[in-house]
Amino acid sequence: MRPVAVIGAGKTAFGAFPELDLRALAVQAGEKCLRTSRVEAGLIESFYLGNFAGPSFVGQNHLAPYISMALGVKGVPATRIEAACASSGSAFYHAWTEVASGLYDLVMVVGVEKMTSQPTARVTEILASAGDLSGEIRAGSTFASLFAMIARRHMYEFGTKKEHLAAVAVKNHAAGALNPDAHMRKNVTLEQALAGKPIAEPLNLYDCSLISDGAAAVILAPLDRASEFTDKPVRVLGIAQASDYVALDQKEDITTFPAVRRASQKAYRMAGVGPDEIEFAELHDCFTIAEIIATEDLGFVKRGCGGPYAMEGHTSLDGQRPINASGGLKAKGHPVGATGVAQICDLVQQIRGEAGPRQVARHSVGLAQNLGGSGATCVVSILGAT
Amino acid sequence: MRPVAVIGAGKTAFGAFPELDLRALAVQAGEKCLRTSRVEAGLIESFYLGNFAGPSFVGQNHLAPYISMALGVKGVPATRIEAACASSGSAFYHAWTEVASGLYDLVMVVGVEKMTSQPTARVTEILASAGDLSGEIRAGSTFASLFAMIARRHMYEFGTKKEHLAAVAVKNHAAGALNPDAHMRKNVTLEQALAGKPIAEPLNLYDCSLISDGAAAVILAPLDRASEFTDKPVRVLGIAQASDYVALDQKEDITTFPAVRRASQKAYRMAGVGPDEIEFAELHDCFTIAEIIATEDLGFVKRGCGGPYAMEGHTSLDGQRPINASGGLKAKGHPVGATGVAQICDLVQQIRGEAGPRQVARHSVGLAQNLGGSGATCVVSILGAT
Repeated sequence: MRPVAVIGAGKTAFGAFPELDLRALAVQAGEKCLRTSRVEAGLIESFYLGNFAGPSFVGQNHLAPYISMALGVKGVPATRIEAACASSGSAFYHAWTEVASGLYDLVMVVGVEKMTSQPTARVTEILASAGDLSGEIRAGSTFASLFAMIARRHMYEFGTKKEHLAAVAVKNHAAGALNPDAHMRKNVTLEQALAGKPIAEPLNLYDCSLISDGAAAVILAPLDRASEFTDKPVRVLGIAQASDYVALDQKEDITTFPAVRRASQKAYRMAGVGPDEIEFAELHDCFTIAEIIATEDLGFVKRGCGGPYAMEGHTSLDGQRPINASGGLKAKGHPVGATGVAQICDLVQQIRGEAGPRQVARHSVGLAQNLGGSGATCVVSILGAT
Repeated sequence: MRPVAVIGAGKTAFGAFPELDLRALAVQAGEKCLRTSRVEAGLIESFYLGNFAGPSFVGQNHLAPYISMALGVKGVPATRIEAACASSGSAFYHAWTEVASGLYDLVMVVGVEKMTSQPTARVTEILASAGDLSGEIRAGSTFASLFAMIARRHMYEFGTKKEHLAAVAVKNHAAGALNPDAHMRKNVTLEQALAGKPIAEPLNLYDCSLISDGAAAVILAPLDRASEFTDKPVRVLGIAQASDYVALDQKEDITTFPAVRRASQKAYRMAGVGPDEIEFAELHDCFTIAEIIATEDLGFVKRGCGGPYAMEGHTSLDGQRPINASGGLKAKGHPVGATGVAQICDLVQQIRGEAGPRQVARHSVGLAQNLGGSGATCVVSILGAT
């Protein structure tokens, strides 16, 4: 496998955009991405689309050519990948395999989701289709209630407290407030975060990520050709995708996600780095507890120590290892199918030193962790300066 | 890229199976496939699922790990690909890229669709989500009416007749009648086929493929390791995926599919063969006119000559180049997400000489053409004896 670089990256703002349909969002991100590189659409040799539930949210399926053709990426393989909330992380992984293997030189990945056109109750129902319909969902679970069970068990096993969850929310809101493209740009205090409207005990409104519209796009190329297309290539140091049971009740232990451990170990090996060398990260904080567990599964801290780790400020913008300097899914927003590629865009921006007031101090090696469902899919990507 | 072989293949029967849910169908095909090879599930290194509309048909999304874990394929990358009716053809293509590039040695692909749990009107609506919702579908088109327009234009341009369409139906029903796994096992006469209930003029009931449940699975390995896993490996000689506009009204000419031409030319080049060397084929006869156009776009006959070509018997089981010796989508059935991999299984069976009364005379090189929507995605695979 040959070294691969991200040579272009572009995102829409995340939020509620009634005036933009799914295709318009995707095209906006794609065109922005093309403009950030010296690549014409006609040069792209393969196209991936990450999308979770376009058919359910807006009625449109067969989305890859639907979007690639509108972007001027014509005739080439155009493939939609669906892996719940890890859809575009997985699309990015597959684009990487094509470039790394030498099959293609220029591969584009777009992630998109248009969620706000549906009422919240219907959104909750659509999201639940990423769980196991034959069991947990039929029994009435939603993703908030699944992660509430995870949080409760984590509290029971390790003494994690609501304050720890709230600390993640406070931190991510603080970063989001500095991000012009974030869905929610407001600071919250620990007191406010603790007093949010209950959603599924122990999770309240501030523990839950946002229902957003948005899209993100990147272009990959072989590292040795990257300088033709950009002055600031960012290298893919390691990447892996892994899987696990969809149903929570099939897992042996719900306080850890084997797919995250597996994907990260593989990605670390490929990158030749360990968790200690990850300077900053974008983690999948669909719920605050998910970020806490991710810091454990990725080896940033020992199992059970993720809560205090966040509470003590180590993962804040000015901490030793900033996590979700973008605002995360919590404040930046979580247009499901866009999230994986958006995380890559956020890493690229930081590595290039272009994150403005959110710029982290050490930014030569960053990690993105994109989770599908309650851990049945995970993609971990490690990016670095060239 | 290194040579790749199909080392295992298994299908469910196609039909209406109220007692089997989507996962049960997929697992049945997957287990059958594993039993046909000397591969244990635990050895599979990557898993692809082709599925068009599980979320719409049965409410379940995040289908790749949902099925791989149930098959005992645990922890590895499990990726769902959606490309309308070409979903599992595309999944097969991506599995091929992983093995051909040396990324993995053992990759499994399952295609599945569970359609008969929905009433026909709802099925028609779900299928229409593979068209362009912002235009043709909003205007009231269904896939039958889109292909009716294609057929009308083909008649206008080339003098194609209803008898030509009916000849395709008669031929595919004749083959299907010999296939124990076919959804519909009955012969029809030309008179019957011409007198079918009108669906969308000039297409009648006999011009339309079936609404079916079913699943199919294959395993790929490097050719040089194939003999470890099977005594009858089948080689992937050439394969390609291509794309085009989703909306019919964006195409310059609706009597030909550029994605089919593009994919086949690329696959021919890779295989080092031309259309004349294809001895038999499984083509995407979602509607009879689609098979006629495919024979033209694949270069089997000149443009406009596909109707007479079928009518004259060249593509019958005992013809010079049998097409859809399985019965095709028309008689074998068309569980959308399963179709692409099912075509591969059908080629494998013929190449191995195991097709019983449907066995074609010359069976060393076969081609499968899997079409998505009204031509926005196409995957062409050329398989051959080793």
